[in-house]
Amino acid sequence: MIFLNCDYNEGVHPKILERIVETNDSQQLGYGYDDYSENARRLIKKAIGRGDDVDVYLTVGGTPTNVLVLSHVLKPFEAIIAADSAHINTHEAGSVEARGHKILATPVKDGKLLASDVKKVVDDLRREPKGHVVEPRVVYISNPTELGTLYTEAELRELYAYCKSINLYLYMDGARLGYGLTAEDNDLDLPKISHLTDAFYIGCTKCGAICGEAVVLINDDFKENFFQSIKQAGQLLAKGRLLGTQLETLFTDDLYFKICKNGNDLALKVREFLKSKGVKFMVETSTNQQFPILKDEVVEKIKDDFTLDYTKRIDEESSVYRICTSWATKEENIDKLIEALDALL
Amino acid sequence: MIFLNCDYNEGVHPKILERIVETNDSQQLGYGYDDYSENARRLIKKAIGRGDDVDVYLTVGGTPTNVLVLSHVLKPFEAIIAADSAHINTHEAGSVEARGHKILATPVKDGKLLASDVKKVVDDLRREPKGHVVEPRVVYISNPTELGTLYTEAELRELYAYCKSINLYLYMDGARLGYGLTAEDNDLDLPKISHLTDAFYIGCTKCGAICGEAVVLINDDFKENFFQSIKQAGQLLAKGRLLGTQLETLFTDDLYFKICKNGNDLALKVREFLKSKGVKFMVETSTNQQFPILKDEVVEKIKDDFTLDYTKRIDEESSVYRICTSWATKEENIDKLIEALDALL
Amino acid sequence: MIFLNCDYNEGVHPKILERIVETNDSQQLGYGYDDYSENARRLIKKAIGRGDDVDVYLTVGGTPTNVLVLSHVLKPFEAIIAADSAHINTHEAGSVEARGHKILATPVKDGKLLASDVKKVVDDLRREPKGHVVEPRVVYISNPTELGTLYTEAELRELYAYCKSINLYLYMDGARLGYGLTAEDNDLDLPKISHLTDAFYIGCTKCGAICGEAVVLINDDFKENFFQSIKQAGQLLAKGRLLGTQLETLFTDDLYFKICKNGNDLALKVREFLKSKGVKFMVETSTNQQFPILKDEVVEKIKDDFTLDYTKRIDEESSVYRICTSWATKEENIDKLIEALDALL
Amino acid sequence: MIFLNCDYNEGVHPKILERIVETNDSQQLGYGYDDYSENARRLIKKAIGRGDDVDVYLTVGGTPTNVLVLSHVLKPFEAIIAADSAHINTHEAGSVEARGHKILATPVKDGKLLASDVKKVVDDLRREPKGHVVEPRVVYISNPTELGTLYTEAELRELYAYCKSINLYLYMDGARLGYGLTAEDNDLDLPKISHLTDAFYIGCTKCGAICGEAVVLINDDFKENFFQSIKQAGQLLAKGRLLGTQLETLFTDDLYFKICKNGNDLALKVREFLKSKGVKFMVETSTNQQFPILKDEVVEKIKDDFTLDYTKRIDEESSVYRICTSWATKEENIDKLIEALDALL
Repeated sequence: MIFLNCDYNEGVHPKILERIVETNDSQQLGYGYDDYSENARRLIKKAIGRGDDVDVYLTVGGTPTNVLVLSHVLKPFEAIIAADSAHINTHEAGSVEARGHKILATPVKDGKLLASDVKKVVDDLRREPKGHVVEPRVVYISNPTELGTLYTEAELRELYAYCKSINLYLYMDGARLGYGLTAEDNDLDLPKISHLTDAFYIGCTKCGAICGEAVVLINDDFKENFFQSIKQAGQLLAKGRLLGTQLETLFTDDLYFKICKNGNDLALKVREFLKSKGVKFMVETSTNQQFPILKDEVVEKIKDDFTLDYTKRIDEESSVYRICTSWATKEENIDKLIEALDALL
Repeated sequence: MIFLNCDYNEGVHPKILERIVETNDSQQLGYGYDDYSENARRLIKKAIGRGDDVDVYLTVGGTPTNVLVLSHVLKPFEAIIAADSAHINTHEAGSVEARGHKILATPVKDGKLLASDVKKVVDDLRREPKGHVVEPRVVYISNPTELGTLYTEAELRELYAYCKSINLYLYMDGARLGYGLTAEDNDLDLPKISHLTDAFYIGCTKCGAICGEAVVLINDDFKENFFQSIKQAGQLLAKGRLLGTQLETLFTDDLYFKICKNGNDLALKVREFLKSKGVKFMVETSTNQQFPILKDEVVEKIKDDFTLDYTKRIDEESSVYRICTSWATKEENIDKLIEALDALL
Repeated sequence: MIFLNCDYNEGVHPKILERIVETNDSQQLGYGYDDYSENARRLIKKAIGRGDDVDVYLTVGGTPTNVLVLSHVLKPFEAIIAADSAHINTHEAGSVEARGHKILATPVKDGKLLASDVKKVVDDLRREPKGHVVEPRVVYISNPTELGTLYTEAELRELYAYCKSINLYLYMDGARLGYGLTAEDNDLDLPKISHLTDAFYIGCTKCGAICGEAVVLINDDFKENFFQSIKQAGQLLAKGRLLGTQLETLFTDDLYFKICKNGNDLALKVREFLKSKGVKFMVETSTNQQFPILKDEVVEKIKDDFTLDYTKRIDEESSVYRICTSWATKEENIDKLIEALDALL
Repeated sequence: MIFLNCDYNEGVHPKILERIVETNDSQQLGYGYDDYSENARRLIKKAIGRGDDVDVYLTVGGTPTNVLVLSHVLKPFEAIIAADSAHINTHEAGSVEARGHKILATPVKDGKLLASDVKKVVDDLRREPKGHVVEPRVVYISNPTELGTLYTEAELRELYAYCKSINLYLYMDGARLGYGLTAEDNDLDLPKISHLTDAFYIGCTKCGAICGEAVVLINDDFKENFFQSIKQAGQLLAKGRLLGTQLETLFTDDLYFKICKNGNDLALKVREFLKSKGVKFMVETSTNQQFPILKDEVVEKIKDDFTLDYTKRIDEESSVYRICTSWATKEENIDKLIEALDALL
């Protein structure tokens, strides 16, 4: 079986595994005070082009990282504005609400929440009697979005400027940031993002690690006592070395970016093939997730060899399926998929 | 100034006030153990046609009553299905989320969440991988709805049957229940509601009291330790006699129903007048809230004499305004409004 | 039966009731925007000797007022230092924890948490690895305490100075403040308290009202968006006039202070009588709660005529009982109690 | 530097590392549906001597595992009874309270909460007016305790029987369970524990893994929708294989027990040496944590070579220090410590 349904089907990049093995015998302090975590934080700051004016923390997984950043910075009556397709709204089992905060879920186009979308939410709330409605405080976006689409620098700049103009924080979920920053039509990079958000995280579990994310806090309002929020969110790994060794390896010699490009390249190979066959897509994306509209019978015929991810029904005989590549996807497997589909389309 | 913007502009019904005065000198136990609260609970059970198989509690206000019922019965990952216009979703400052629960806000027609609406939400969630999404557990409705519309017995019966078929609780917010049950096209009553919901509250603050609601718990799952949830929700009044004296008066000689009818009668008088002038309405309702679409300049011209409630914009020159009558509205004031508008429409 | 077990056995002061009656017919805005609430806030600021540099809000009850102030100002990992006998720790059904915060309950003498007590808690926490322990942030005291004891100005000054020196907030629960400020050995007043705390509330339910408390916010950190926290705590009364009419009356012509003195005077009358009989007390207090150690058989013999409150067991035949007087207690009833006990002691 | 301050200074057991390496290239499902997690759950059930009547889940770390079990099963007004030295009370940064629950912290002897301790707490609460106090619902213990002490089978049996008699759940935190079950004076085992608790977790991070714990749910009340609580607690590892490969290795050929014994053996070697020198201990324990009372100047003199953990001050010149061994501690390092101390004691 070839799994193409998710970015979590693979183990860890061989270079990282090597680093875990070679450091295993050393004694280290716990809770992120180990040498490797220290080095990882240093390398990540360097990759962002920032120094000690930003704080970097290593956490275990994406969902709890979102929850911890949001619950750290919000008061109980403050809310998050997000796309209705946002991960925090759809696939986190109500974790953000469980920590006390409303998500103002907003219908958007192609998964991207733009300045104009946020403005509409805020304006609607401002027409209500204050005190009966929540106070919007954080704008949550992901880049790439849940649909694989990307923010342009201009869009992000406009969104951030609007947020600043009315005292909102902008937070970016970068679960798949490696794929976003290596996409062919991307014009952002880590330094730019660090000047256009208040906080973001660099996703590593989907980008070469077996677990681990790097939270970057830029706005001082996020920094005080963040360690306690990590603890409360279940993200303080006792043996923090597991995160440190992984992330120092990913941020040495640009490994993070080099390996993510593979996911995009193979996704585009599938995309171009499908387009040549006249297949339509739910959304246009240049990153590692592709959302073609396929006949259910076609997917049925290949299902013993290839696992795709059902996304949503289009009509009686067709649905959107997600084909998800990653840093670890083998080109030969993609070629096999293309071959199999070529006979059916 | 004549206020018609809200159901909260009035004091308390004279008969209730008389009762508060006449009982003021007696010494009573606190926290709802006073004689009047005991009597009120007994009278309310009688009005519902039920005995000790239902529990009745007296609480202070509507929003916290919703919060307390929902937080009492839900686990942290369990969610509430509600109309997107629902009071808990729009006008409770995120109180339900502050206690840990997601509201699955659903677009509906005329404020009414029907069995088919709930089924759609549930079916969509069931297609997702369990564990990544919230678990729907309570269906929240209000009757009358936020838009003044009413559930028919058939609709409520179908909704309740659907809820039971998939193990959901049905909770009814009855903030304006008195107006609902005395509307000309209503076919529900308290006994029927007690067999078609798991819990509901009978709103009294909008229906003659200065504060106070009566929560009715029918399903045994809601009953255990409910007193603690009342305490936690800030609804355990130290001098519970204030609630007891009011509610025993309202449920003596059907006062609750007799006085609410006045709100509906005057609302219909306004409605018929406006219809005769060709005015359109956002929604058709027979209860104490009317939502005509009026030219802004018309409302502007009467604003020194009458306060209406702006609801939403229709076009450049017209908006929906809420005209809200109540048990205390004087017919002479409605006649003045009609006279004033007659000259302008 | 004469109730002396609690401060909640009485109705409302006649002057307040008169005011409720005389204003009942006027139409007013809801949610605290009525004329009476506006006037009450003005009069309370005047009583404190402060102007618009402090914010005053009217709330319904004591427990939820504590919860709302604390949950408004605390982050999820921030904790409250309080006496182990504190109301928030013992008699609020876990409401503070339900909103997410740990109470660091500290054993103290006579219910009073002094600067040295707080210092010990803080020093102990500071020896722990930061991030694994909560962050202390608010010191909660009540005055009078749960045991009826009073802070001297010197003690409060020292406590406040210590709090400021290490960036803690000081919050005073004034549920029985009226009795405290009119006690014979009191040297505090409202203006002094407003310079020696960051926030406090003036309890009125125990001091003449049927419900209602006045929250005073002094430190600017407490002020922003407090209205939303009131809403979330279930303390935003729809018909805020009920609070406004009561509190404006209490703070007109010093009624609040004049009536509370009665509670203290009668408590001292009981105290002096019991002392003359050689009865010992659990704690020495000059306010409306007295805690004599009585033989259980004595209390048993008077129990058909007088309800006292069992506090705790001392030995096989004796217990501490609370005798609680109030603004409404009649001297003739106290005389009857003395007479009854005189025959038995 | 030789670290003896903590059980988190080491990497992962070589056999586990080998398993991680050898399985790295296989494609697997995410979120715990991988083959290795499946196998680990099977092996753990076997080790407990139970079948599908118990549920086993793999989680990442100890603190969030406690939080998730407790928050899963408790209503907002329900509380946990625990020793005041309990990890949830002292070193989890208020995580349990952040999810809404009060901990009733109880002073106990040697870290062990016995049936009589729980009874006292419950009896005290039952004397209070119901509704104003929290409802005790879960008893939390750890075995070994925070002080390294062990429950005997008789003590656990009595505690569990008491809990059942008054409808309390008993939950055991087994962060160091491997050391407990291999201690020389232990008379418990996994099967017995599974019949004397409602839920417990088998700690692996301290016992050979780099991260990972196994939660065992015995009482059916804990089982429904536990997966969502894992997600909400930040414990649902996307690449669950990391936990699966580790725990299947630990529970193959009794590796878990074989390696933990080393920690105890070396702890006893230190203990016997210190006793022979007349050193006193804060508490008597046969597990991997020893708490000798040492002169501060002695610890100061060895601090460039050995890191111990300061626990608490005894007098001006002496303190309790924790010496913590583990599965990975080398006997040669313990010999070096003994040699160094031998010259100073």
